[in-house]
Amino acid sequence: MIQTPYLLFLGDAPDQLAAKVAQGIKDWRPSNAVGQFRLPACRADMGLQDMSLEQGLQAGAKTLVIGVANRGGTISVEWKAVLVEALRLGYDLAAGLHNLLRDENELQAAAKVNGGTLHDVRVPTIAYPIANGIKRSGKRVLAIGTDCSCGKMYTAMSMDSEMTARGMKSDFRATGQTGILITGKGVPLDAVIADFMAGAVEYLTPDNDPDHWDHIEGQGSLFHVSYSGVTMALIHGGQPDALVLCHEPTRKHMRGLPHFSLPSLAILRDTALPLAQVANPAAKVIGISVNTKALDQAEARILLQQIEDRMDLPTTDPFRFGSGKLVDALTNL
Amino acid sequence: MIQTPYLLFLGDAPDQLAAKVAQGIKDWRPSNAVGQFRLPACRADMGLQDMSLEQGLQAGAKTLVIGVANRGGTISVEWKAVLVEALRLGYDLAAGLHNLLRDENELQAAAKVNGGTLHDVRVPTIAYPIANGIKRSGKRVLAIGTDCSCGKMYTAMSMDSEMTARGMKSDFRATGQTGILITGKGVPLDAVIADFMAGAVEYLTPDNDPDHWDHIEGQGSLFHVSYSGVTMALIHGGQPDALVLCHEPTRKHMRGLPHFSLPSLAILRDTALPLAQVANPAAKVIGISVNTKALDQAEARILLQQIEDRMDLPTTDPFRFGSGKLVDALTNL
Repeated sequence: MIQTPYLLFLGDAPDQLAAKVAQGIKDWRPSNAVGQFRLPACRADMGLQDMSLEQGLQAGAKTLVIGVANRGGTISVEWKAVLVEALRLGYDLAAGLHNLLRDENELQAAAKVNGGTLHDVRVPTIAYPIANGIKRSGKRVLAIGTDCSCGKMYTAMSMDSEMTARGMKSDFRATGQTGILITGKGVPLDAVIADFMAGAVEYLTPDNDPDHWDHIEGQGSLFHVSYSGVTMALIHGGQPDALVLCHEPTRKHMRGLPHFSLPSLAILRDTALPLAQVANPAAKVIGISVNTKALDQAEARILLQQIEDRMDLPTTDPFRFGSGKLVDALTNL
Repeated sequence: MIQTPYLLFLGDAPDQLAAKVAQGIKDWRPSNAVGQFRLPACRADMGLQDMSLEQGLQAGAKTLVIGVANRGGTISVEWKAVLVEALRLGYDLAAGLHNLLRDENELQAAAKVNGGTLHDVRVPTIAYPIANGIKRSGKRVLAIGTDCSCGKMYTAMSMDSEMTARGMKSDFRATGQTGILITGKGVPLDAVIADFMAGAVEYLTPDNDPDHWDHIEGQGSLFHVSYSGVTMALIHGGQPDALVLCHEPTRKHMRGLPHFSLPSLAILRDTALPLAQVANPAAKVIGISVNTKALDQAEARILLQQIEDRMDLPTTDPFRFGSGKLVDALTNL
């Protein structure tokens, strides 16, 4: 568990996209962020109040979260000066960089002297069990994609927010570094050892109230040959009651694999559902989430209607039009 | 690479089954073993010449291989005395135990003093790449199972032996500790970090001559919820041209999962083939391997014929009746 609230470190982010983690926190857990800390060269802006480290502390911040990824995922000299000072002032640090906080001697030393904690959310800290496949109480929904990076996290976040707004029992279950930093907890599934992947997902989504929903963040795609094993472990470890199909309609090929084309939504449905029913015979595909960012509003509405008609499943862009349709489908299960 | 030939350490194995690793070496790479070393309490016998450590050296042995697993996978005091003495005499050690050789201070120290190498084949020693899915030259066949531990390794070993006997170009590619100890190399796939599983399989089965076959050792099962992610990574990382379906007909439930029944061979075929075709559109299911150990010879022949008729695929028990049929099917691809 990472202590909240956060001060968001945007560093010298060259553009808004580089601050994807901060953006996720701003979008989905705004109450977790008291403000933003920017270096002079920073070109990203979350629209939060700019604060010094001291001002962040006065506003109640407990953890300085690295909300930016630079090329190579390293910790620059400029960053390090800020991070050491933050530890000196009493902050914890949290990051999902390839360059681990704990691998920097100065950060290790400053954390030790000041009693601060370094959270490297990319690295598992728990010995996960081997999955046992025993049916758990409570309900689970998993977002699966035609490709990587097509909106699975945002879909799960949005359904969780919608359920919370309706007064339903609901948790977002993070399986990647961004989700873990946003919510302060989760499992960094792509860094777990093969034999324990499905067990890590079982650990993440334990027995719960019969009317409680876990919204499990998807990873990879059954059709992405680099990461399909991780997706498979989510489908079997998560034993979802419901699947939501996620799609980015303008993608020309599988992400990072220029010689692989995307599957259709129908093929994704027909492939994923029987696999999900191995772990949970009652599993159903309940809706479709389309990332329409590349389309204008009118085009987006037309496309969503076309897909809904063709697939005969509630279809929305959760970020643009909300996930009410998907939550309706879940409550009707 | 583990240096061959081996002296096989059977320790105080309580029965033949406990010496599964030694049995595999004896069955599939007999030329890798100069003899066996047994403690007084040993109840296993590979039918090899019993040797002292000194006699093993004189017979040419380079590595003492722990060919036995005891309960808990630990290294007992009695074992350790032998292992230290072996290092002192100039042996390397190799083992696939949970209790790593390198974690024992006395073995570390003795290896250092004597210049010996400790091979813990359960632990990856290479930083595998992320899979790129690019089509490789050469041919690959992957054994996949209705369940774990149903004969996938023996099937692949047998096809490799049959091809070698026919003068064809062929390699067995080990993905588990037993296979690695038998052949001296491979990838311990279940210990690889999730993101790199498929890349590790690509690494294991690189470009090769157009008429060369890799026989990839399968792991887990698409229908075993604890390990299905590992199987998925083999299917996509291995980009097999051919799949062989493996089955143990007397199994009552999935191994270790008493509440899960086994899929039929037809369901395994229909599930695995489309997934394999994502990575290799030319992939085909070419035959069936049935582990008939629990049946008598006549029953076994009847069952194999029934399955062959029903599935319309060459069907054999490679260990009992050879894998000629499967190799014929591969050569006709």
